[in-house]
Amino acid sequence: MSFIQVLDQGYVRLVDKMGSDLTVVNAARVSYAKQSKELTDRDIRLIRFLAREGHTSPFRHAVLQFEIYAPLMVARQWWKYVVGSAHMEGTGDSLDAWNESSRRYITEEPVFYVPRKDEWRSKPDNSKQGSGQPIEWEKGEAFTASLMEYIEQGLEKYQAALDAGICAEQARLFLPAYGLYVRWYWTASLQAVCHFLSQRLEHDAQKEIQLYAKAILQLSEAQFPNAIAQFIKKEEVK
Amino acid sequence: MSFIQVLDQGYVRLVDKMGSDLTVVNAARVSYAKQSKELTDRDIRLIRFLAREGHTSPFRHAVLQFEIYAPLMVARQWWKYVVGSAHMEGTGDSLDAWNESSRRYITEEPVFYVPRKDEWRSKPDNSKQGSGQPIEWEKGEAFTASLMEYIEQGLEKYQAALDAGICAEQARLFLPAYGLYVRWYWTASLQAVCHFLSQRLEHDAQKEIQLYAKAILQLSEAQFPNAIAQFIKKEEVK
Amino acid sequence: MSFIQVLDQGYVRLVDKMGSDLTVVNAARVSYAKQSKELTDRDIRLIRFLAREGHTSPFRHAVLQFEIYAPLMVARQWWKYVVGSAHMEGTGDSLDAWNESSRRYITEEPVFYVPRKDEWRSKPDNSKQGSGQPIEWEKGEAFTASLMEYIEQGLEKYQAALDAGICAEQARLFLPAYGLYVRWYWTASLQAVCHFLSQRLEHDAQKEIQLYAKAILQLSEAQFPNAIAQFIKKEEVK
Amino acid sequence: MSFIQVLDQGYVRLVDKMGSDLTVVNAARVSYAKQSKELTDRDIRLIRFLAREGHTSPFRHAVLQFEIYAPLMVARQWWKYVVGSAHMEGTGDSLDAWNESSRRYITEEPVFYVPRKDEWRSKPDNSKQGSGQPIEWEKGEAFTASLMEYIEQGLEKYQAALDAGICAEQARLFLPAYGLYVRWYWTASLQAVCHFLSQRLEHDAQKEIQLYAKAILQLSEAQFPNAIAQFIKKEEVK
Repeated sequence: MSFIQVLDQGYVRLVDKMGSDLTVVNAARVSYAKQSKELTDRDIRLIRFLAREGHTSPFRHAVLQFEIYAPLMVARQWWKYVVGSAHMEGTGDSLDAWNESSRRYITEEPVFYVPRKDEWRSKPDNSKQGSGQPIEWEKGEAFTASLMEYIEQGLEKYQAALDAGICAEQARLFLPAYGLYVRWYWTASLQAVCHFLSQRLEHDAQKEIQLYAKAILQLSEAQFPNAIAQFIKKEEVK
Repeated sequence: MSFIQVLDQGYVRLVDKMGSDLTVVNAARVSYAKQSKELTDRDIRLIRFLAREGHTSPFRHAVLQFEIYAPLMVARQWWKYVVGSAHMEGTGDSLDAWNESSRRYITEEPVFYVPRKDEWRSKPDNSKQGSGQPIEWEKGEAFTASLMEYIEQGLEKYQAALDAGICAEQARLFLPAYGLYVRWYWTASLQAVCHFLSQRLEHDAQKEIQLYAKAILQLSEAQFPNAIAQFIKKEEVK
Repeated sequence: MSFIQVLDQGYVRLVDKMGSDLTVVNAARVSYAKQSKELTDRDIRLIRFLAREGHTSPFRHAVLQFEIYAPLMVARQWWKYVVGSAHMEGTGDSLDAWNESSRRYITEEPVFYVPRKDEWRSKPDNSKQGSGQPIEWEKGEAFTASLMEYIEQGLEKYQAALDAGICAEQARLFLPAYGLYVRWYWTASLQAVCHFLSQRLEHDAQKEIQLYAKAILQLSEAQFPNAIAQFIKKEEVK
Repeated sequence: MSFIQVLDQGYVRLVDKMGSDLTVVNAARVSYAKQSKELTDRDIRLIRFLAREGHTSPFRHAVLQFEIYAPLMVARQWWKYVVGSAHMEGTGDSLDAWNESSRRYITEEPVFYVPRKDEWRSKPDNSKQGSGQPIEWEKGEAFTASLMEYIEQGLEKYQAALDAGICAEQARLFLPAYGLYVRWYWTASLQAVCHFLSQRLEHDAQKEIQLYAKAILQLSEAQFPNAIAQFIKKEEVK
């Protein structure tokens, strides 16, 4: 399995990966000119030692590549993880010019994240991070309808601007963009992925990005079971 | 002068800088254990040589720091410049928790960029990048009014959601966020600044980011006149 | 083939790789939500366009991993390529402590690069970079013998220091270390590999690193034939 | 004071810096559009909070620049700190070509680190990192003399090779290079400096690099007293 749906219309897809738990072990032992071909107990103890002692550089030599489809508000936080990572998004960049599309920048229909009636959350009770309990669904139902109506209106204005000949890069000012789905590639070292997980699985991270982090965790630990287990444990202890 | 206004309510402010044209020269000649104290013609020829031949590593040892206030759509493109740079934005991050503000995340009133009636641009005539000529101001006037009205409505819905006890991180889905002003620190090596300029001063970059790039250029060349001149010239020739 | 011998006892080995020419294409087109499965002429034209226009970010999403065994003087230059790369060398680092080896740091016998009698080069005739013609082999023969004798002597003194109980980290001061072979992992994006090649294949790079660059080129273009061809061509033209 | 001598002939010099403890505070609070001009108790508590919670990104916005003169074996470990850092060494690079020096690459007389008679250390008693007690000075005296004699001999052979017309890049194979002093610029964010300190002040780091780390600590805490104190404390606790 390499695809996990997240939120109403988003997803995380594992596109590719390089290496396995053995990559970490072999990178750490590069000076010995012998490679492990099979993971031994001794190798697993080495992974545990490296994670515990913060010798994370061997984890930079394994790589994961994901395609992510997420609301802009999630993407914005994600893109802050730049050390050991590369993000690639096609839209809004001159790459699109190549595509000889008359609708330049408008590569597909805008799609928006809309919380369902039971997904709206209250603000937290105390000054701590994050959000609180779900609000009553009757209230939620009203806000879901209100948001859908507002998006619909924005899309109409956006279309009207395009129809009037306004360039797409300005017309998009009419979109309620925090909920707009964007799609990108994230190519990241195992170290960078673990760092992301250690921060975004936390209970005080925004709920929506926590859900994406769980999908990343699930796809990553299928590929690097020992490395992920040791690294995340270590982070939790800290 | 260290402050330049950009767009209707944005700005670029030079917060700090480290070094001068001499820093580039002294970094390039570090193996000689002597430092130039004053910029000579020979030093200027060295800067020209370095820029022309693509030996850009000495330019990594001078640093500029800006505070930027720009619409989110501009910020998104800017943040792609990560090599040799650090971006720092306070909002939406757990840092805010520290501030014991009951409005967590809502650190100030939302402010939006709204093009004036004569600032709306048509789509380009051919398939090339960028936007075309301004559209007629009568049309523009209508879209300015329409956008203001739409923002106003979004703000009301946003406030209603907050009043109903919905957490700010969800309530913001009601904001037409591409035009929302965000504020951040950008600390970047002179090399990273020149790379940004060489791409975002281009005529096919989005007009709004071109205006910010011009402000960065003006503030930077006051500090590093020779380095900027040689570097930007080189990029243009390419 | 994934292994190429370089110099008298060195080598480059392709350990792993992630992606193909298609990775570049799919990263560039991520906003379209469709992936090419087979490389078409249109895809190849896109690669050419990206390389020519300097849109190199899609090349960051393909990765190559090498094990390299090279003299320290070559390693020192190589390690300057850090953007988009990770280097991993086991020796001299606390990782070795884990290995419960009584010889800590001394993970294998020191091995040295010694130019053969016909491999010594004269200094260049003019002020340009690089080295000149080979010197006469009679002279070369004498220097080869002289270097071997000097290394032998250094190894004896090094061993004497260890035998007297001196720690390995100081005893190594007796080694003529520029020629000492070191082994490391280099995990680098395709973009970083191309940048390395564009500089180190140049005729004025040190001859020894040129030979390593040729091995990297050969191993890389077998994996990414179109991307390497377009990228290196572009660099040469510049 | 901005210059500290280290080892027999090495040093660390603070060349420049950008920012102060206030820079960290203002970066963390950038979303508020007000800057502290003077460091308050509340600001100091914020620095403590950031360091303790691992919110280290505001520390990337203050910068330190050092000139370092250290033996190659120290330089090799130092250069592994690349995240948030730039290293610049003039030698061995094509930059030197510009200098129209007939001795290309040979920018100054080679200088070597030689431990004094009471500075040789034994290997550690157990399998832990680092070195043990000083060895008896009578033994040490002999090794100091032996190393000096060996270096002298290497220099003669090196000079003979140059005199015979061999290029400098090969002639240097005759130098016992681990002790060879090299000079470079290190421009690093406060975060990168603290990360370096937290690892290289440790008792199991090589003694020689510990001495350099102490010099960096002394020069840095004069500029960023609160940030350094909080950050290093946190690392020690870990």
